[in-house]
Amino acid sequence: MHYSNKKSETPTSRFEVVYRIFVNDHRNIKQHADDITIEQTVEIPANCIPQEIVEAHILGRVENIAPAEVEDRVDKAELFDVTISYRWDLAGHAIPQFLNVVFGNISLKNNIKVIGLHLPESCLSDFPGPSHGIDGIRKMLGVYGRPLACTALKPAGLAVEKLANRAAAFARGGVDIIKDDHGLSDQPFHPFKERVARCQEAVARENSRTGRKTLYCPMLSGRFDQIEEQAQYALRQGVQGMLIAPMLVGWDTARYLSESYGMVTMAHPSLTGVFFHSAVHGMTPSVLLGTIFRLIGADVSIFPNSGGRFFFSNDECRAISKSLKEPLGSLKAAFPCPAGGMSLDRMKDLANDFGEDAVFLIGGYLLQNWADPTDAIKAFMDEIRLRFHERLEDPDSGFLSSCEVKPVGVSGTVVDILPSDDFRWAQGGRTIESYKTNDDFDFNQVTRQELMGKFGEKTSFDVRYFEIGPGGYSSLEKHVHEHVVIGARGSGTLVKNNKAIPISANDIAYVGPMEAHQFRNQEGASEPFGFYCIVDHVRDKPMKP
Amino acid sequence: MHYSNKKSETPTSRFEVVYRIFVNDHRNIKQHADDITIEQTVEIPANCIPQEIVEAHILGRVENIAPAEVEDRVDKAELFDVTISYRWDLAGHAIPQFLNVVFGNISLKNNIKVIGLHLPESCLSDFPGPSHGIDGIRKMLGVYGRPLACTALKPAGLAVEKLANRAAAFARGGVDIIKDDHGLSDQPFHPFKERVARCQEAVARENSRTGRKTLYCPMLSGRFDQIEEQAQYALRQGVQGMLIAPMLVGWDTARYLSESYGMVTMAHPSLTGVFFHSAVHGMTPSVLLGTIFRLIGADVSIFPNSGGRFFFSNDECRAISKSLKEPLGSLKAAFPCPAGGMSLDRMKDLANDFGEDAVFLIGGYLLQNWADPTDAIKAFMDEIRLRFHERLEDPDSGFLSSCEVKPVGVSGTVVDILPSDDFRWAQGGRTIESYKTNDDFDFNQVTRQELMGKFGEKTSFDVRYFEIGPGGYSSLEKHVHEHVVIGARGSGTLVKNNKAIPISANDIAYVGPMEAHQFRNQEGASEPFGFYCIVDHVRDKPMKP
Repeated sequence: MHYSNKKSETPTSRFEVVYRIFVNDHRNIKQHADDITIEQTVEIPANCIPQEIVEAHILGRVENIAPAEVEDRVDKAELFDVTISYRWDLAGHAIPQFLNVVFGNISLKNNIKVIGLHLPESCLSDFPGPSHGIDGIRKMLGVYGRPLACTALKPAGLAVEKLANRAAAFARGGVDIIKDDHGLSDQPFHPFKERVARCQEAVARENSRTGRKTLYCPMLSGRFDQIEEQAQYALRQGVQGMLIAPMLVGWDTARYLSESYGMVTMAHPSLTGVFFHSAVHGMTPSVLLGTIFRLIGADVSIFPNSGGRFFFSNDECRAISKSLKEPLGSLKAAFPCPAGGMSLDRMKDLANDFGEDAVFLIGGYLLQNWADPTDAIKAFMDEIRLRFHERLEDPDSGFLSSCEVKPVGVSGTVVDILPSDDFRWAQGGRTIESYKTNDDFDFNQVTRQELMGKFGEKTSFDVRYFEIGPGGYSSLEKHVHEHVVIGARGSGTLVKNNKAIPISANDIAYVGPMEAHQFRNQEGASEPFGFYCIVDHVRDKPMKP
Repeated sequence: MHYSNKKSETPTSRFEVVYRIFVNDHRNIKQHADDITIEQTVEIPANCIPQEIVEAHILGRVENIAPAEVEDRVDKAELFDVTISYRWDLAGHAIPQFLNVVFGNISLKNNIKVIGLHLPESCLSDFPGPSHGIDGIRKMLGVYGRPLACTALKPAGLAVEKLANRAAAFARGGVDIIKDDHGLSDQPFHPFKERVARCQEAVARENSRTGRKTLYCPMLSGRFDQIEEQAQYALRQGVQGMLIAPMLVGWDTARYLSESYGMVTMAHPSLTGVFFHSAVHGMTPSVLLGTIFRLIGADVSIFPNSGGRFFFSNDECRAISKSLKEPLGSLKAAFPCPAGGMSLDRMKDLANDFGEDAVFLIGGYLLQNWADPTDAIKAFMDEIRLRFHERLEDPDSGFLSSCEVKPVGVSGTVVDILPSDDFRWAQGGRTIESYKTNDDFDFNQVTRQELMGKFGEKTSFDVRYFEIGPGGYSSLEKHVHEHVVIGARGSGTLVKNNKAIPISANDIAYVGPMEAHQFRNQEGASEPFGFYCIVDHVRDKPMKP
């Protein structure tokens, strides 16, 4: 049986889902397919769908029905591959509703498995995909020509100091990536903050000794109301990657954190096994851990490799790898990360199956076979180097400059009071700084004093004092974060949206998100124009308008 | 084979998971069970687990192994029910890590099904459970003695005006709850805000006419960074309930929104079918849609009833109902909500299976069989009333004041500049306000002007101006949020940690978390002491020291 629908013009983009359907009831495949087109969209009986909704192509549309291309058929099976398209805007331009349309209600029906997703370029623009991808991570680490080596920081229950020592030993051995065990969360015996700070510190210390770069990816698995703070905290400690389990914390939580903070995102498959257990139900690993994980921003997708402790087949694992690396609009390619009971004996298979663009994750085996974790990593690296031609470059120190989070060169302490000495404040390490070090921007006669927010305070904002000398002006720029400005001395002008707004002492000015703006001293003034400027502590970089 | 472990004393609470395990390999059941105790906790080979971790009881512990009590055994099965306990604090006191411990990695192994959860009172205190529960919803609606009637607002694609008219017609018919179809999200053809506002308005109008109360529960399925705003928006429209699909938006997202906003929470099973398809893998519906949904705050758990369009058995559905209503620490009981292709012909079965403490959800059938939705609802209500003895009381109008979300009394607009008129700013709706309305605190001669942050700006901070008259002082208080203060006119004193810190114009003062503090005008001064005070936009309430 073969059925193909001639496409008609529709006002909006459509995307396609390929379902494998096992027909084992009185209905034929066309009825099964039509049932899905309704269940996943309007969810009402066919005879009461308003005509306007039919005409607007809100329903799913069967694009193709073909016998399934599988070698070993399910016993007495009628197995078909059915392609159904949906209006992209029905998916709400958001991951939760996208998954709802793909498999929400029909997950509760038998014998339907999602085996493919086809997303045209126009749909893909809603999802940023990996922030770094394979190329970005290679550049960050300065490692080319071979797979990356990753190990896991474990076990849960080990004291923070021992975990940090273990991380240091791994870094000393030269491993590329250290990921937390996914069971390390915010337990009282190793609280999140202390653990992440100490482990990152340990890794950074080794990095500065070796001149190489080991990337540490702590597990973020906090509550809805904690997890963003965990990411920010980690960033402030200098962490540049995270491990996240989308099915534990929410698919879109992963997307949001990846997109917002640009950390290297390692996605963990915890709890996703329910999608894969059945041959005739759920989703294939390559759809969920490949395409969907890549859509939600995974730079590295961890999966249980065949031949380890779990049940994926070799074909399934290679299909995941393909989905992560094949062209997908303008989305970056992501690293497959075979894991789950890997050993050095498996290196030949790993190399054959995944090639050089992969992250090999070996955890327990290293702990089991070497007393010294540094030696274990060295043996691991040797096995990789034996099979590939490593090329090293200098690691790229910052992808997200840590000065965005904590500026370099500002050090000082929390103080109770900063008395003004003619608009200078010298206590607690406050100094007068140059306005900007980045000479991409044009400015003149501007000085800056950081006053509060960067000296150990926990405020969500920073308070700075700027002074613009006679004839001076700040750079013309825009950014998402806002300014609140309080005039302090002299007078000047805020140029914003082609308006010139005068500011004198104790006038309060506001600059909204993405408003191009510039501060200028009063024309012809001989005195400085001074003002306080308050901004969000965590904020985006200025751009040219 | 039967194995029972004598419990030893452990320092912390433990909870138990009952796994049904199908043994179909060379390993015996004890080996399978031991494997889980490691995989779900330390995840390293047994021979390299540090002794201190064993002694701290970090590993799972097999409490019991017994032959499974099932009637129809899987072919040649060796089927066992294994109870394993875990340290509660390993679960991180948070839903994501709790699910990780229960079934994270082993979801990727074959033939393990979670069939029970036992949480002692000490563990349950981490999870609030339903905000309202059966009793709370009955009180809110004033309906006793019969099941509640619920219908669905659909189909997706219908214009907002028509959806609102349909909602009004349902309310006119007297239905207890209207839930959005779970496919209504933020689509361009019915944007979230417009749709929710119009539908709630329509329902509220009918409620005010009838004197009864129909509860409207819009679907919240926005992105991680949208969904809390969606909840707040809905609350501001007077909405008192929400529909949420935990597996689409995140298990803990549901918990957070339920706990934070106290809306009636209807939980939808979209995408959860992957847990239930297999007889030997995943979780039983009663564990996930019963116990776990109740833990994360479901007041109403929707599930596909047997005999409808989906595959649950009658026993499974009754088990869900039991899990929702049986005693569970101090958690409130939740309503089972059988759905998924129900019709009025099924009313007798529904009544028998679920009794009066249930929500019956009938959607498509009503649209199919009545041209007028009001008539359809009336027929639905008649069928319920025929079988139960309805008792009505006055509905309870409010449960969460909308002023909890947006402070009353501050209205105004974003402005570019607030020129100072002798330390008064009158633009954009800024006014001089009384310092505090709460007279629990002692203060004197203080006025306040909100300047920035509460008028539509998206800053993470608020900027206010305070003035303390001669002889005046602010309240002595403490809070977690910090203050940054900039002296503006006159001079005064910050009393903090038993120190008196002088502040004059352009001095910058800091008050740290939980530091008891007070601002006072200079002793003997005849002029006001004025200062800017900058605080986090979202902040905790002041307490007395």
